[in-house]
Amino acid sequence: MKSIDALRFLGLDMVDEANSGHPGMVLGAAPMVYQLFAKHMHVDPKHPAWFNRDRFILSAGHGSALLYALLHLSGFDLTIEDLKAFRQVGSKTPGHPEFHDTPGVDATTGPLGQGTAHAVGIAIAESFLRNKFNQPDFSVVDHYTYVLSSDGDLQEGVAMEALALAGHLKLSKLIILMDSNDVQLDGPTLNSTSTDIKKLIESFQFDYQYVEDANDLDALETAIQAAKASDKPSFIEVKSIIGFQSSKAGTSAVHGSPLGKEETERLRGVFDYQEGRFEVAKDVYDDYQVNVIERGQKAHQTWQSLFDRYQKAYPAEAKLVNIIEQKTPSNLAEVLKLKPLEGSEATRTSIGVALEELSAVYPALMGGSADLSGSTKVKGADGPFSKNNRTGRNLNFGVREHAMAAIVNGMNLHHIRGMSGGFFTFSDYMKPSMRLAAIMGLPSLFIFTHDSVAIGEDGPTHQPVEHLAQFRSTPNMQVFRPADANETRLSLRLAVETLNQPSVLVLTRQNLPVVTSPGYDAFKVGGYLLSEVAEPEGILIASGSEVSLALEAQSLLKEQGIHVNVVSMPSLDRFVRQPKAVQEKVLPKEMTKRLAIELGSPGLWYQVSSEVMGLDRFGLSGPDHEILKTLGFTPEKVVERYLKL
Amino acid sequence: MKSIDALRFLGLDMVDEANSGHPGMVLGAAPMVYQLFAKHMHVDPKHPAWFNRDRFILSAGHGSALLYALLHLSGFDLTIEDLKAFRQVGSKTPGHPEFHDTPGVDATTGPLGQGTAHAVGIAIAESFLRNKFNQPDFSVVDHYTYVLSSDGDLQEGVAMEALALAGHLKLSKLIILMDSNDVQLDGPTLNSTSTDIKKLIESFQFDYQYVEDANDLDALETAIQAAKASDKPSFIEVKSIIGFQSSKAGTSAVHGSPLGKEETERLRGVFDYQEGRFEVAKDVYDDYQVNVIERGQKAHQTWQSLFDRYQKAYPAEAKLVNIIEQKTPSNLAEVLKLKPLEGSEATRTSIGVALEELSAVYPALMGGSADLSGSTKVKGADGPFSKNNRTGRNLNFGVREHAMAAIVNGMNLHHIRGMSGGFFTFSDYMKPSMRLAAIMGLPSLFIFTHDSVAIGEDGPTHQPVEHLAQFRSTPNMQVFRPADANETRLSLRLAVETLNQPSVLVLTRQNLPVVTSPGYDAFKVGGYLLSEVAEPEGILIASGSEVSLALEAQSLLKEQGIHVNVVSMPSLDRFVRQPKAVQEKVLPKEMTKRLAIELGSPGLWYQVSSEVMGLDRFGLSGPDHEILKTLGFTPEKVVERYLKL
Repeated sequence: MKSIDALRFLGLDMVDEANSGHPGMVLGAAPMVYQLFAKHMHVDPKHPAWFNRDRFILSAGHGSALLYALLHLSGFDLTIEDLKAFRQVGSKTPGHPEFHDTPGVDATTGPLGQGTAHAVGIAIAESFLRNKFNQPDFSVVDHYTYVLSSDGDLQEGVAMEALALAGHLKLSKLIILMDSNDVQLDGPTLNSTSTDIKKLIESFQFDYQYVEDANDLDALETAIQAAKASDKPSFIEVKSIIGFQSSKAGTSAVHGSPLGKEETERLRGVFDYQEGRFEVAKDVYDDYQVNVIERGQKAHQTWQSLFDRYQKAYPAEAKLVNIIEQKTPSNLAEVLKLKPLEGSEATRTSIGVALEELSAVYPALMGGSADLSGSTKVKGADGPFSKNNRTGRNLNFGVREHAMAAIVNGMNLHHIRGMSGGFFTFSDYMKPSMRLAAIMGLPSLFIFTHDSVAIGEDGPTHQPVEHLAQFRSTPNMQVFRPADANETRLSLRLAVETLNQPSVLVLTRQNLPVVTSPGYDAFKVGGYLLSEVAEPEGILIASGSEVSLALEAQSLLKEQGIHVNVVSMPSLDRFVRQPKAVQEKVLPKEMTKRLAIELGSPGLWYQVSSEVMGLDRFGLSGPDHEILKTLGFTPEKVVERYLKL
Repeated sequence: MKSIDALRFLGLDMVDEANSGHPGMVLGAAPMVYQLFAKHMHVDPKHPAWFNRDRFILSAGHGSALLYALLHLSGFDLTIEDLKAFRQVGSKTPGHPEFHDTPGVDATTGPLGQGTAHAVGIAIAESFLRNKFNQPDFSVVDHYTYVLSSDGDLQEGVAMEALALAGHLKLSKLIILMDSNDVQLDGPTLNSTSTDIKKLIESFQFDYQYVEDANDLDALETAIQAAKASDKPSFIEVKSIIGFQSSKAGTSAVHGSPLGKEETERLRGVFDYQEGRFEVAKDVYDDYQVNVIERGQKAHQTWQSLFDRYQKAYPAEAKLVNIIEQKTPSNLAEVLKLKPLEGSEATRTSIGVALEELSAVYPALMGGSADLSGSTKVKGADGPFSKNNRTGRNLNFGVREHAMAAIVNGMNLHHIRGMSGGFFTFSDYMKPSMRLAAIMGLPSLFIFTHDSVAIGEDGPTHQPVEHLAQFRSTPNMQVFRPADANETRLSLRLAVETLNQPSVLVLTRQNLPVVTSPGYDAFKVGGYLLSEVAEPEGILIASGSEVSLALEAQSLLKEQGIHVNVVSMPSLDRFVRQPKAVQEKVLPKEMTKRLAIELGSPGLWYQVSSEVMGLDRFGLSGPDHEILKTLGFTPEKVVERYLKL
């Protein structure tokens, strides 16, 4: 079919032009995306952000050329010139699909497994909003989430975790098509897998269907229709031939290397495709015009009129607009106001309280923990989101940290403010998806407790050391390690107000005295003068649980007639990204006698201090005070270390 | 049965004594481990490192009290006093099982999913060695690998990835028992999962069995015997009751909180268990003496005599002893000798060549890539290890990075020198297991290519930025980013010679001129003076691809009459761990005008330089030279930046 072949040849021409890219999937999977877009997807290319559009996630992100060709033909703002600039600096057509870079791209994908897992988060958000806000005759949130997955994609643990949760939650509007071509980069899938896909998918409580030939549009149509009708999430395994009809068809050689213009020319003959390089026939454009663009525009218009009437009929539900527009509560300063300087509290407890208060005013806030909510105190409001309770905002992720992070991102892609909870050391499991949140600039809230070796008995595997450094080193991510309940509340406030990057909150298991009460502007710098003395000779700089330790050391030093200031630095990464002048107000240039103290890898603190008390070893199992004594994190040892400067 | 109840009460007493730990599994799973140890496990408690012992991995590591009780009764060097010191600093009984800390503990576990995945690596090593070295009538490597898994353990993606590979490889001597109690930390498993375990496991091509009651020893016995006889890997789902017979039995409340001495006392009545706290009846010790200890010792003696005869009968196979004793080739200096200073080569190519040369002299070297061997050039020798070729040393891991890292660790636990290959940005997927390698001090070889934004067209998701910082910040891990083919060879040599920690090698996709030829001792410092000028006024410090960039900048500066030295620093983390005096030989104190240059997060370089040219943003899609120009990584920009100092 010419409309499908147009996808194929635009895709091949792009790969040839760039002399870089993945032609295999372009040839094999073109019919699948055509059928989906021409008959099912509701999108409005002139309004790619239309809230109730169907979502399409290309989890096999290396098939980007196919997606760009599809978006071009479907009327999105992507010209032939854009296609010619495939994989060039500054183009709208980067090597893998990038959210923000290209209209119509619903998520950044490329690292396998991620798109599928993110899609589960999108489907959760849709289901929640549909059940929370729709009214009789006003189905204002009601769309499908489609995924194009692949052999390799499904080998990833994160994909399996996410599918397990999607099946459990019965996300019936999630439909996954698998480009099942039995080939992956290193050769036939048989070299590395014998998994029975049907059994696997059914074990996750998905509806499974099999389509024997990707080119059989009728079979595809029947399967997609059945999937839409199913009350379970659906999975359609579609057998295709990688590099279909090319000389290397069915082999891994066609996965990621350009065919070359000569072979592409030969293929034009095989497919009897008349148009030249980057040329598209009018009847092809016409087909997409009628079947994708106009059908989508009509759906959008129908929805818009429905939504207008909905807003009038249900003014109370107008808060859905706030979610659509990603508005945060305007009274955060009041809701998260500071507490008196008294008592002590674990900052995991502080966040639990703060999240409850926040949830009451922020209906978009939703999330939970990876089977640790009892320990992390991170829970969404209104009971568990489940197949029987679609309006609960607490997600029981199960022991699926990786999928949790991806799902939180997916929810944020759908303007639900997704948050996660876990032990900080298990952030390792989540890193691939957290990185995607930073790349996409999603406002995901990643909350962690059990922030250091001070967690005690659980031992080295549960005690983070290098984790602060790894997230502080990640671009476009902000990390907070608050000193007490008040800095915790400020961290949460700033995190919630930050809409263009993810935030990482790192909290304690153990109690911390309430010792800070900074102004919001000072806090936002990342570090501020917490305790000032007259004529200081030096500075102690600390974060989190070490701030009160620094204050104790300050007192001990004072007894010896030595006067030092204490700077609390809840966000080292925010601080070092400030202009020099701002930094120097907190850490005056001339004040070179500095000691930074943190129960973690020391390396990054040399950015602000010539001496650092940190940890370059793993922790140990024992009561927390014994551990701290063993590792020398006591006020006396801080004094000793300072005196050596 | 008294021998089982002894496990239960020792375990409960430990948890009560520490007032910390997990009693639920102790009560529920005790019969399973008893049956395994009393009837099947071949271990010699006086020789816990006996090479051909059966392995037992407690993947549900929070059940450590049960394991320690079992090891005590089984005659390992673990006294009642040791049990009383459960979860105390410096004890042999830490909160989760720690390899090295406790005789009889075959792997560090705790983070869920890891033990199961590590066990797959152990089973691969066993299968390889069995098929490689056994001779007719000389079955010198021939043992089982048992795992105790759990509901939560199997929700982890890494466990599913590893099972998928184990089933594909038909690792028939791998036997997984699942403590299936329908409860996890946050509540009933029904809250977060509906996965059909039988279907899931069968989809991975495992043999699946179901035991309805963990207390039914006959049923357990039948199942274990059938598992041993199966030609597939086996999985036995055993229904148990968490916190069996306690007042909170069957609920998550008994998962991770001590019962308390009072409740434990009450339970002694329920079980009609006569012994007091930490007391064990003689007939219980006798039972373990006969059924575990003597049976195991006899097996060890039989093996030892077989092995002695084997060594005489097959002197050529004596190299198995080198593997058992973890010997590395003595001629590495020769095998990995340096190349002439000419031409240029991608360091991924350099490693491919070096690994081939190394494989020829190092029969323990085994591993491969996660479906990227064509790109990474990381392949084991002798063809693929598969169900039909048990002596191949190349592992096709599939797109399963996380399981790959765990499996590589498992192989190293079994004295096979496991290595992995992947794109550096996907190290994120592997981090949880790489951290375990560092905690255990395993000599895993983690090789990565595509080390920076200079990989080009694939774009931000494929371009590492923060990854060097995250591994350099991890304790007990060494990271190399070699400047060229020669530093690559030296990195590999040093990595291979390092047996007490994992090594991370970070290599380029693009060509690099061969510009270094350091002595091995200088290289080992982590950084060395590469290019010295007369009367230098400053230093350029660089790693990897930026070393040749620094040399170019040095030349440009020279044209302006400015003389600077260039220091190559292939391992910043090794360098900063050197004594100050050693560091100052390379970076003299008085030479304060320094510029460090690296295509990655700058933060850690402030440890050695006051100014850093790094990246605090994600990359972009385009040809590599365009990317480097856009990001300002050109000799001219280095000069410009240096002149600003």
